[in-house]
Amino acid sequence: MGKILRLGLGQLEVGMNKAQNIANARAAILNLHQQNVNMIVLPECFNCPYSNDYFREYSEEIPSVSTASSSLSEDKHPTTKMISDMAQETKSYIIAGSVPELDAKDRIFNTSVVVDPSGAIVAKHRKLHLFDINVPGKIEFRESKTLTAGQQVTMFDTEFGRVGLGICYDLRFPEYAQACASAGCDVIVYPGAFNTTTGPAHWELLLRARALDNQLYVIGCSPARNPEMAHIYPTYGYSTVVGPWGDVLWRTEHAAVLHALDLDMAKVAEVRQNIPIRAQKRFDVYTASTVVESPDQ
Amino acid sequence: MGKILRLGLGQLEVGMNKAQNIANARAAILNLHQQNVNMIVLPECFNCPYSNDYFREYSEEIPSVSTASSSLSEDKHPTTKMISDMAQETKSYIIAGSVPELDAKDRIFNTSVVVDPSGAIVAKHRKLHLFDINVPGKIEFRESKTLTAGQQVTMFDTEFGRVGLGICYDLRFPEYAQACASAGCDVIVYPGAFNTTTGPAHWELLLRARALDNQLYVIGCSPARNPEMAHIYPTYGYSTVVGPWGDVLWRTEHAAVLHALDLDMAKVAEVRQNIPIRAQKRFDVYTASTVVESPDQ
Repeated sequence: MGKILRLGLGQLEVGMNKAQNIANARAAILNLHQQNVNMIVLPECFNCPYSNDYFREYSEEIPSVSTASSSLSEDKHPTTKMISDMAQETKSYIIAGSVPELDAKDRIFNTSVVVDPSGAIVAKHRKLHLFDINVPGKIEFRESKTLTAGQQVTMFDTEFGRVGLGICYDLRFPEYAQACASAGCDVIVYPGAFNTTTGPAHWELLLRARALDNQLYVIGCSPARNPEMAHIYPTYGYSTVVGPWGDVLWRTEHAAVLHALDLDMAKVAEVRQNIPIRAQKRFDVYTASTVVESPDQ
Repeated sequence: MGKILRLGLGQLEVGMNKAQNIANARAAILNLHQQNVNMIVLPECFNCPYSNDYFREYSEEIPSVSTASSSLSEDKHPTTKMISDMAQETKSYIIAGSVPELDAKDRIFNTSVVVDPSGAIVAKHRKLHLFDINVPGKIEFRESKTLTAGQQVTMFDTEFGRVGLGICYDLRFPEYAQACASAGCDVIVYPGAFNTTTGPAHWELLLRARALDNQLYVIGCSPARNPEMAHIYPTYGYSTVVGPWGDVLWRTEHAAVLHALDLDMAKVAEVRQNIPIRAQKRFDVYTASTVVESPDQ
């Protein structure tokens, strides 16, 4: 630890043209590379409109972890191939937001792939909690109409620390972040496309809560709010980076933006030492949660 | 459910004189009763300066749950006797913030006692997580120098729903609130005296996070910031009530204040139906948190 992670975030505008969305992400990666970043984060659903109507049409296969970059093909894996090529060219980790993944059983997942500076796939997270909500008159969405849920907590190791990876609605589940933290994560990255109802109410609160409760960096990376796509999904935007003290280190609004900032990884240990909640937890007691009365102890 | 809980909060000024502090709490209860409340919440350490130097001197015995009010004595239990008398007189639940408790083994606890409208003790929470932190140059405190930690998650039932009860530093542990929520709580009450370092940084964030993540009401009740006591402990104040959507329903600043407000208990079920995270949790996966690589699933 004690290292500086120079992070690049792309709050990208996503449109109807898949090839154009991939080209736009490629240009963003090259731009952020000019700012000397070590790790680049892209938003949820960066090559596809966020809608059950489009996930299958825009989906592609994503090879498993440890697949050699040489076996990626422009034809079958256009998004992952671009990410792998760019990771090698920029010598950066790339956390490729998410894209719709088609698997061999014809299922579709909302999947984030992570490539290391050698171009190898080091992690692949399939959204664990599907976004099925209904706030009457405001926002209804049922990802489970078209998508299959993942089956794991996803983490990967870098020279800057261990990184946990969730997608959007995964952020609503404190247990997911707790699992990452207890397994040693120093950072959790959430590509996420909240909307204009839940975004203003909950996005920053959830990001800050995960950071403070687990005393680690939390990175939320959203697509930009593209006015031409508002009839499909009202994206909130407001990508945000939070430190292990729960403090907002950077936040943007709804327009497309590329931003680089330094994360001092020593802060994680410092906050954990000052407020040592990790050592003070009472797991012997929490599970005995059926107690309603309280006789003397 | 579907009921309106009319809540009364006392952000009380606490001074050096124990009898005066008890009299002040009594007057606050009577004042709130004039505002037709059903439940009254007092702050942490409302009869004693918040300091290891005073906990033993100000401590008193607190009888166990289910002790008949008739066995309380002015002499041995001056604080609990006043609370029980006032609960009967005002026909209210009283969540008596906290006071230093001396037990039969000569141990001292930071304890919150709850009395129902009949005057009976229905719950008693001993602070589970002792406040031992050190933010160099800002705030250092070691409750464990003088206090013993509790051994349970504390809840009690009312006609308005099930109420969980934690004290101050207990708020930093999401697992505590999760235990309350999974056992059916609709409200969690945290008497708490954050300070002028951690208060502005974390108090509201923690209260809102507990409310949103668990989709229930959260009530944080602090002592006022008494300028004459600032050399002993720099109390933050800012008592706050948060709804199950994570929205701040009421918040005050640092001066002493009494306030009554209505909580619509039907909101708990409504938020839980709109965003059904309680049914969507993946406990089958969180515990498998040692996975670092992610082969296909």
